[in-house]
Amino acid sequence: MKKSLGSKPWALPSPVWVVGTYGDDGQPNMMTLSWGGICSSDPPCVAISVRKSRLTYSNIIKRKAFTINIPSKQHLTAVDYAGIASGKHADKFLAAGLTPIQSDLVQAPYAEEFPLILECRLLHTVEIGVHTQFIGEILDVKAEAAVLNEQKCPVIELINPIISTAPDRKYYEVGGCLGQAYHTGLKIVGTKIK
Amino acid sequence: MKKSLGSKPWALPSPVWVVGTYGDDGQPNMMTLSWGGICSSDPPCVAISVRKSRLTYSNIIKRKAFTINIPSKQHLTAVDYAGIASGKHADKFLAAGLTPIQSDLVQAPYAEEFPLILECRLLHTVEIGVHTQFIGEILDVKAEAAVLNEQKCPVIELINPIISTAPDRKYYEVGGCLGQAYHTGLKIVGTKIK
Repeated sequence: MKKSLGSKPWALPSPVWVVGTYGDDGQPNMMTLSWGGICSSDPPCVAISVRKSRLTYSNIIKRKAFTINIPSKQHLTAVDYAGIASGKHADKFLAAGLTPIQSDLVQAPYAEEFPLILECRLLHTVEIGVHTQFIGEILDVKAEAAVLNEQKCPVIELINPIISTAPDRKYYEVGGCLGQAYHTGLKIVGTKIK
Repeated sequence: MKKSLGSKPWALPSPVWVVGTYGDDGQPNMMTLSWGGICSSDPPCVAISVRKSRLTYSNIIKRKAFTINIPSKQHLTAVDYAGIASGKHADKFLAAGLTPIQSDLVQAPYAEEFPLILECRLLHTVEIGVHTQFIGEILDVKAEAAVLNEQKCPVIELINPIISTAPDRKYYEVGGCLGQAYHTGLKIVGTKIK
């Protein structure tokens, strides 16, 4: 018998991503968020949700572009800071000691120090309550060579991304590998179903 | 200098959620997916992406409802199976040894065995390439008492949810706590910015 906890945004785990945008004056900005996820395989698309009051909101509306920066756990202080401070009052890249690099595909910056980044052009804007969801087409994924395996595939153990939990607002690291997808479940397919 | 990996849906980490729906005949179905995330705080909403060919797609379109079931790592075999087999050919709850419970709020079932579930009514449908994104309003979160702390808050260490990686399609568990959000970043706010 389950206990009812009410109407809450309590799915977990959530990713911890840093969104890169440019302001009116070309000022690079970054904002940490956890409301997001991949939303299409082809074209590859990612969804993020941003409140209208955020600088990131108006920057995306104007430039029709953003980057998703996937930080490592060693960047936690800078990442948490980018979720607290506003680019309206601070140069967050400068304050956090990160280097903005201009994407060659979209009008948005990414952080040189973060190991994995996605360059996105705005595809859809969906109004949902207090948040606006931006759906971006991923035009390119760029990675540090140090986080790739021999097949040029990003490896999570080398990236060390951060996870967040909505109910108690904590950060976690990723633990051990549990197995390959589309594998262990074949036992049930094989024995119980034709 | 980052390496370009091309246009890929390679944000990470992704959640591993099991979506519960009813078919035309009242047959409970479940499907595992990783393309999803919270997309609004108020009203609390969650987005999931499903291909049109899936039974889950037509079930959600007809019933305007679904559940998000957050499984524990000990359910990995059942979870992987629910991402391989189709409800068009199998009773996946039965085959995986899970018990469908009818939600008292929406026309969708959830699995009694999974520790945390969200009952959602369909709010928006967004067409994005090969996937359709369903945005559901979370009408209630229900949890097993065993995964709650004294404040009735779900605790990730007690849930042991599963994470997936898009580039190499593996499952991972959640690791250790890195800290409280809106905390470590205050060091930068305090020292470098007014």
